[in-house]
Amino acid sequence: MPSERASFADRRTRAAAKLREQDFGALLVSPSADLQYLAGYHLFASERLTCLVLDREGRATMVCPAFEAPRAAVAAPDVERRTWEETDDPFAIVASLVQSSGQEALPHREFRVASAITRGLRMRKDAAEVEALRAVSESADRAYARILERSFAGRTEREIGADLADLLRAEGHDEVAFTIVGSGANGASPHHEAGDRRIADGDTIVLDFGGAMRGYRSDITRTVHVGGTIGREEQKVHDVVRRSQEAGYAAARTDASAESVDAAARRVIDEAGYGEFFIHRTGHGIGLDGHEHPYLVRGNRERLEPGMAFSIEPGVYLPGRFGVRIEDIAVIDRDGSARPLNRASHAFATVA
Amino acid sequence: MPSERASFADRRTRAAAKLREQDFGALLVSPSADLQYLAGYHLFASERLTCLVLDREGRATMVCPAFEAPRAAVAAPDVERRTWEETDDPFAIVASLVQSSGQEALPHREFRVASAITRGLRMRKDAAEVEALRAVSESADRAYARILERSFAGRTEREIGADLADLLRAEGHDEVAFTIVGSGANGASPHHEAGDRRIADGDTIVLDFGGAMRGYRSDITRTVHVGGTIGREEQKVHDVVRRSQEAGYAAARTDASAESVDAAARRVIDEAGYGEFFIHRTGHGIGLDGHEHPYLVRGNRERLEPGMAFSIEPGVYLPGRFGVRIEDIAVIDRDGSARPLNRASHAFATVA
Repeated sequence: MPSERASFADRRTRAAAKLREQDFGALLVSPSADLQYLAGYHLFASERLTCLVLDREGRATMVCPAFEAPRAAVAAPDVERRTWEETDDPFAIVASLVQSSGQEALPHREFRVASAITRGLRMRKDAAEVEALRAVSESADRAYARILERSFAGRTEREIGADLADLLRAEGHDEVAFTIVGSGANGASPHHEAGDRRIADGDTIVLDFGGAMRGYRSDITRTVHVGGTIGREEQKVHDVVRRSQEAGYAAARTDASAESVDAAARRVIDEAGYGEFFIHRTGHGIGLDGHEHPYLVRGNRERLEPGMAFSIEPGVYLPGRFGVRIEDIAVIDRDGSARPLNRASHAFATVA
Repeated sequence: MPSERASFADRRTRAAAKLREQDFGALLVSPSADLQYLAGYHLFASERLTCLVLDREGRATMVCPAFEAPRAAVAAPDVERRTWEETDDPFAIVASLVQSSGQEALPHREFRVASAITRGLRMRKDAAEVEALRAVSESADRAYARILERSFAGRTEREIGADLADLLRAEGHDEVAFTIVGSGANGASPHHEAGDRRIADGDTIVLDFGGAMRGYRSDITRTVHVGGTIGREEQKVHDVVRRSQEAGYAAARTDASAESVDAAARRVIDEAGYGEFFIHRTGHGIGLDGHEHPYLVRGNRERLEPGMAFSIEPGVYLPGRFGVRIEDIAVIDRDGSARPLNRASHAFATVA
């Protein structure tokens, strides 16, 4: 798509401007979300060097293995390529490109992480990126709606996780990254994946899953209950977490600090007496990476701006008993408020 | 398993000996195959620091996020943990551990990549590792046998790729890493994945797929033909690649150099007149990583030893027409010869 390629070129122009501003010699980008962002080229890092070299004038060259050149040409047709054969030294090619742009050779330079340049760019999503995040979030919403129709009792966490993966793909995801199914006491470990525990009637289950569609990532959490009779404390904790998340949404506005959203969500849980059981930050940015800037965590005074997209995901984890977490992806809109990209119900759903 | 934990402790002891030999202060290992190798802890790298600190005396400490401590405790019960809360500085903890082992603090140290220590250890597989590679290779063999029963003509590469993924899981893989289906001219791009091309009668198709079972990785390639009438050049190229692979096997022996295996396989293809179309190295090591040392490539004079495991995968790629590749995983046995871990037939199979 010509318009899409134009946006990659525009990003490189802005990155080059930042190189000049911050007095860097060149930007070297190996396979990563940064490479997707700047050139639209998505591939796994491997021991064979692929590296985009962007100089201060905005000239971009993709150094890549000769036998992968056809792929690079399709993925990033507007970027010049310098290929290397299996017995060449690709680092020498990168060094020569930096030198030919008028900079000193690499051994005499200091290195800084490339996020000094890319972080600020990637954190502020443009309209097409927000649209991509909305589409993948809604795909995850549909997978959630469909998992509620399955029966849970008597099956293992792993089986439910496999169902979630299938549903994500069926609903349009081209990659499944994780399917956390934390049932009963397993739900009290926030990053428990999906194990052999057999789900029983009466369990509270944390479902946290996501993946990618055309590069952009989803991440949603809902907590469900097996059978209709929800215990009093389970219901109470769910209510608290839900109100905490709503408080996070209300606090997330243009010019609010990232840490103020964390504080707002945390206050609700603190006041309900569960503060010591909310053991992680409130959220993380999302885009081409599943976790990226801005992080909603105490100490992060970064100000929110239109186009920033992040999770709001408070949780309460009662060791040995159960956990509850509710997570949506939100984006700061032009009107300054946080708009949810997930639309799935926040109710404490019961499953069979 | 106690015996398995003992082998992790033994690896750390050997790594510490190398630290002393090479005069390093400490080994810092973040999530990676190295962390799996040294502590049996497998998790994805994230923005939250997890880091194994191994000092010169072999004392190991896992620095990890507090809320992931339960997982770390299950995965690596014999390694001491130092946890950090969401607003702590985990790098300060790592620095303090290095200092308390009697070394200078980190800002004054130089860093070298950890593979200086781990490469030599991981490259020489012990009996349990070879057994794990054999098991995952045979699982891939079974997936290959079953894909031959499916019909190919009229379906897309992506559909066949999805079938392969399902079959790998059905045959015991707990992770699917890649399913390359290169049909017709797509087969001439060695790392073409699986696209929307619809497979037709008469196509030659490169199938290259793999994943992991309990951490250890598979990687197998076979080339098949749709329909029984194989063209003369397709058959000739397949024969050449097959003989090239056999020559690679014959050359791969204790004390042979890695590059000599590449040369032996390449010679067969050169002599058949297809040398310019064999555009990649002959193989790569395999273990906890899909590609690791030793690499079978010109310029690598590393000597093969018992326990080294690697792919032997010559190929011929005729641009715009078709490609042929045959790949097995081989291990150098105690008797000095290369034993195939894959047992699937090398014949040019025909599919429907």
